[in-house]
Amino acid sequence: MKKLIPTIIQDYKSKAVYMLGYSNAKSLEKTKKTRYVWFWSRSRKKLWTKGEESGNKLKVKEIYFDCDRDTILIKALLIGKNVCHTGNLSCFSKLSFPRRRESS
Amino acid sequence: MKKLIPTIIQDYKSKAVYMLGYSNAKSLEKTKKTRYVWFWSRSRKKLWTKGEESGNKLKVKEIYFDCDRDTILIKALLIGKNVCHTGNLSCFSKLSFPRRRESS
Repeated sequence: MKKLIPTIIQDYKSKAVYMLGYSNAKSLEKTKKTRYVWFWSRSRKKLWTKGEESGNKLKVKEIYFDCDRDTILIKALLIGKNVCHTGNLSCFSKLSFPRRRESS
Repeated sequence: MKKLIPTIIQDYKSKAVYMLGYSNAKSLEKTKKTRYVWFWSRSRKKLWTKGEESGNKLKVKEIYFDCDRDTILIKALLIGKNVCHTGNLSCFSKLSFPRRRESS
């Protein structure tokens, strides 16, 4: 597998997209073994798992590779309250487009 | 914005995750302007849009940036039958883990 693969995390039940992290062979192996989502941190150059600090963990249900095997989709259940470090449920909580209509 | 941003495509209604492509400033501008999903092709080094050949287009409903603004989520409606060039609805159609139980 390629060195670093973008990995989408989606809620297994609600289907909400929570975040995108990066997998390598080692983190993927650990994800499968522990059944919790592990990533490779590009900035800290080490494996990390959701919930190390926050306690909000991602329990793996299913893992899919895309058709050309350069992206992963993990369907997971959230154990805890939120995924994003900002306190939002999802990292994709801020609508960028279309902008809300402004009053004239 | 960073040069190339991974961009998740999710169905606006069914919430299925269809694919991941890459956006740059130019493709994102075109996506907003045309309201159809445009990407930057890393291999062909040019803008491309879903449906150029297949006719299966992605009509943009909402665009989200993630909390650290290095991933995009586009919620779109599929105009056509499938997203994946293999003929599957989604590019994430092949379950990789857990493997189906094999009979002994």
